[in-house]
Amino acid sequence: MTNVVKLDEERAKTAEALDRLKTLVAGDLERVNQVILQQMQSRVPLIPQLAGHIVASGGKRIRPMLTLAAAKLCAYDGPRHTNLAACVEFIHTATLLHDDVVDDSALRRGVETANALWGNEASVLVGDFLFSRAFQVMVADGSLRVLEILSTASAVIAEGEVHQLLTTNDTTTSEDTYLDVIAAKTAALFAAACRIGAVVADRERQEEEALDGYGRNLGIAFQLVDDALDYSSHSITLGKTVGDDFREGKITLPVILAYRRGNDEERQFWHRTLEEGQQSDTDIQRAIRLMERYHALPDTVERARHYGAKAKDALGIFPNTDEKQTLLDLVDFCIDRSH
Amino acid sequence: MTNVVKLDEERAKTAEALDRLKTLVAGDLERVNQVILQQMQSRVPLIPQLAGHIVASGGKRIRPMLTLAAAKLCAYDGPRHTNLAACVEFIHTATLLHDDVVDDSALRRGVETANALWGNEASVLVGDFLFSRAFQVMVADGSLRVLEILSTASAVIAEGEVHQLLTTNDTTTSEDTYLDVIAAKTAALFAAACRIGAVVADRERQEEEALDGYGRNLGIAFQLVDDALDYSSHSITLGKTVGDDFREGKITLPVILAYRRGNDEERQFWHRTLEEGQQSDTDIQRAIRLMERYHALPDTVERARHYGAKAKDALGIFPNTDEKQTLLDLVDFCIDRSH
Repeated sequence: MTNVVKLDEERAKTAEALDRLKTLVAGDLERVNQVILQQMQSRVPLIPQLAGHIVASGGKRIRPMLTLAAAKLCAYDGPRHTNLAACVEFIHTATLLHDDVVDDSALRRGVETANALWGNEASVLVGDFLFSRAFQVMVADGSLRVLEILSTASAVIAEGEVHQLLTTNDTTTSEDTYLDVIAAKTAALFAAACRIGAVVADRERQEEEALDGYGRNLGIAFQLVDDALDYSSHSITLGKTVGDDFREGKITLPVILAYRRGNDEERQFWHRTLEEGQQSDTDIQRAIRLMERYHALPDTVERARHYGAKAKDALGIFPNTDEKQTLLDLVDFCIDRSH
Repeated sequence: MTNVVKLDEERAKTAEALDRLKTLVAGDLERVNQVILQQMQSRVPLIPQLAGHIVASGGKRIRPMLTLAAAKLCAYDGPRHTNLAACVEFIHTATLLHDDVVDDSALRRGVETANALWGNEASVLVGDFLFSRAFQVMVADGSLRVLEILSTASAVIAEGEVHQLLTTNDTTTSEDTYLDVIAAKTAALFAAACRIGAVVADRERQEEEALDGYGRNLGIAFQLVDDALDYSSHSITLGKTVGDDFREGKITLPVILAYRRGNDEERQFWHRTLEEGQQSDTDIQRAIRLMERYHALPDTVERARHYGAKAKDALGIFPNTDEKQTLLDLVDFCIDRSH
């Protein structure tokens, strides 16, 4: 009982962390939303319609908030960070649109996906539009450094997504290969989003790299927790669905741990369900029971804690400001979502 | 008989035009192919595999050759045009990959498409990779002007593709709407490819715009002829297939002319086949017969000639060099493919 109360208190504290981040960047985020709305306009009405749907249902805006908070941490007081934060969100949104086509998803955060509503064709093409538009906004900003950072991140993301496609249904995927995939598909954009906060503030390379390191490790922790949540009943309270990765045959760390720690008969189960894609309605329950038996979810979160610790240490060179504390607390928030 | 001989002579003359263009840029094109090969590399082997397939089967390399020839016309003698021509080809290739997914195509130029061989997922993601890689190469080149031109062209292409999607199966599409679509989806990249030839050579705005105008009008003419070829038996000699647009319910100018010039009963035919998508095996033959009855193909080519004439006149401000003559002849080649 005491334990539950304590957990609840912790959770409240870390939920607060997200609120404090939102408060910290509130004015800027409002401006980012305006830029997003303005830049998704087109003389072809389906574009703002579809883009508006995904932008609205796209979640917490954590990536653009990272750019804004990083710029604040670097005491930047110019106007450029809001446009660039919008570019980061556009690149993320384009990726989501293409991901949903690749995964053939019908729901995202409980809302019908753009491909379910308007078809795969429109999702692919509007993704391309948002991606191009992001580059147009960066060009108008005029920094070749920023263009380099975000074009490189985009190429790495695409590489990571192709790599993930190749590990799908492959139960022999190793933990290190999985880490390569999430470092590319998720952490590269977190790193770039943070780094450009230092670039607009014209900070030294050491600070740029510190923010890159913060974002990269936070991104890995974030994805690890996301992958644990896909098998956790706690997801339901977060409005997420359980078992999407299982149904799609994605090989994430919870699976890798349960598979490696399991016996032959259990491995047969993973082969049948994930490699051969033969799943009955109760198989997701068995998958979750196997993960419980082998402590796969708490250990995935433990791995996330390791990257979270690295993320926090990366910020060590910055003075102890409110901005820094908010970014440190954000790490705990990302990890504590898991329980 | 004399007429046939004359046609054959003309065709030989214009086929020569493409050969002369190839000869003009041969050394540079070799270098472009090397850049393409080098830049499609990735630690994820599926990327060069899939990209190599589409690049190899991707056709005549007309867009990068335009950049090379435009740079030559502007007496450019530096090294940048070959990298940028490779970017143009990458953007085009990314578009082809996504197009084939959107159209669910199994064949392109008689060769199996990447989506047929590796699936839609990989095609979408490798397209994203090539697109990002193009921007990385542009950033390394370092010209914000070039980045502006090609990011804008990319956004316009995506807009055009979405617009085309909206006109698909819609027999009420007007000629002007169709022109908007092809100006965006095809002509924008032809224009940009030519324009950057002047930009690298640091030519005056008037010359930049002349090359933009040449490319844009050539692109429109090229697409009009392509759309006529989709209903022409002459396609078979070119290794193209007949009836793809018809099967996909695409509303191109030959359809628009036949529909508008037809009677009620004929319009019912277009409704059934293109709007409702109810097609029997012989319907493509009837479509071609209706086009013959209303002179839809020769008149589509006549429209192409109009844009071809504009393309030629756009180059009027350049001195009469071999390079200019080659570009002028290329216009005739693009149009004379039609018969």
